[in-house]
Amino acid sequence: MSKLLTDLIEALRCLPGVGGKSAQRMAFHLLERDRERGMRLAHALEEAMQRVGNCSRCRNFSEDPVCPICASSSRDKQVLCVVESPTELAAIEQATGFRGQYFVLLGRLSPLDGLGPEELGLDLLAERLGSGEIEEMIIATNPTVEGEATAHYLAQLARAAGVKPSRLAHGVPLGGELEFVDRSTLAHAFGSRQTVR
Amino acid sequence: MSKLLTDLIEALRCLPGVGGKSAQRMAFHLLERDRERGMRLAHALEEAMQRVGNCSRCRNFSEDPVCPICASSSRDKQVLCVVESPTELAAIEQATGFRGQYFVLLGRLSPLDGLGPEELGLDLLAERLGSGEIEEMIIATNPTVEGEATAHYLAQLARAAGVKPSRLAHGVPLGGELEFVDRSTLAHAFGSRQTVR
Ligand SMILES: [Zn+2]
Ligand SMILES: [Zn+2]
Repeated sequence: MSKLLTDLIEALRCLPGVGGKSAQRMAFHLLERDRERGMRLAHALEEAMQRVGNCSRCRNFSEDPVCPICASSSRDKQVLCVVESPTELAAIEQATGFRGQYFVLLGRLSPLDGLGPEELGLDLLAERLGSGEIEEMIIATNPTVEGEATAHYLAQLARAAGVKPSRLAHGVPLGGELEFVDRSTLAHAFGSRQTVR
Repeated sequence: MSKLLTDLIEALRCLPGVGGKSAQRMAFHLLERDRERGMRLAHALEEAMQRVGNCSRCRNFSEDPVCPICASSSRDKQVLCVVESPTELAAIEQATGFRGQYFVLLGRLSPLDGLGPEELGLDLLAERLGSGEIEEMIIATNPTVEGEATAHYLAQLARAAGVKPSRLAHGVPLGGELEFVDRSTLAHAFGSRQTVR
């Protein structure tokens, strides 16, 4: 088989859920029928991989210094939702009617992996909590052991700043990843979030 | 959401079997965890879309004027297998022990779509058949109406050049339940039953 084709099939396997057989089908499909869209995909990938950074305010993915959500004047500045990753932010945006702001940890507390408060940007978060603008902080970390430990730490941080911490209602399956929870469960859990005492 | 990210998700949907949800998961996965492989994929796509052409001898995908199979000195030059597309060539290479050569039609006879003998490279095929080197031509077009019509035409071409045409056997798929085999296949398999020795 052509070397460039073999290389393409191998490279396509970096996509989650794509094995050797799917990768081969994808490569042949693009070469036989859709080279123009294949080129567009190459370009979109290159642009995104090189230019998407993180918002300086919320740490979500953004190619601009401040992301559209942080820059929006129509979003509620009194409620801040903290998530582990941009994937979870997107899931909440798509499933709930939340109109507040976000903070993305880009991880969770995990001392063994070298992830402490500094890596999660908690100094930046503490600064925002201390601004006096925020009234409630919704903690939407994953319901895993590390996610729960992170939530506990975040609740203390909020209380120290006089901000009311809340947590997504149970209903999200224990040990599950938010990313894979169905929309209605996620929306329900988001709506019945509980104050952390 | 970031525009570059939205563009990437949209572009990923050109891949067969990838819907909006998978595309989003793929984009986030690459951005969060695998930018280097994302860049490699962009590069592999660009190279393949721009540089993969067709072998001047067999019309299979190739970035060189003559593909590795045609260039190989260890393959049998007396048997030629004709397929509709590079996908089918790959399937035969991977499933069978065939060590002969190929010819890829890049389509099938379909007058309504403007696909005639010229578009399928049949002049090139006739030239190879006339070289006196080939003894058998295996016709491996798809068992569709157009594939069968193409096979009929190809068989005449072979006979005219004194080459023996052959066709893949039709029948019940191995491991298939008779109950689920379509009627015409079953009827054909019954009619061409083989004596057991
Ligand atoms: Zn932001
Ligand atoms: Zn070739």
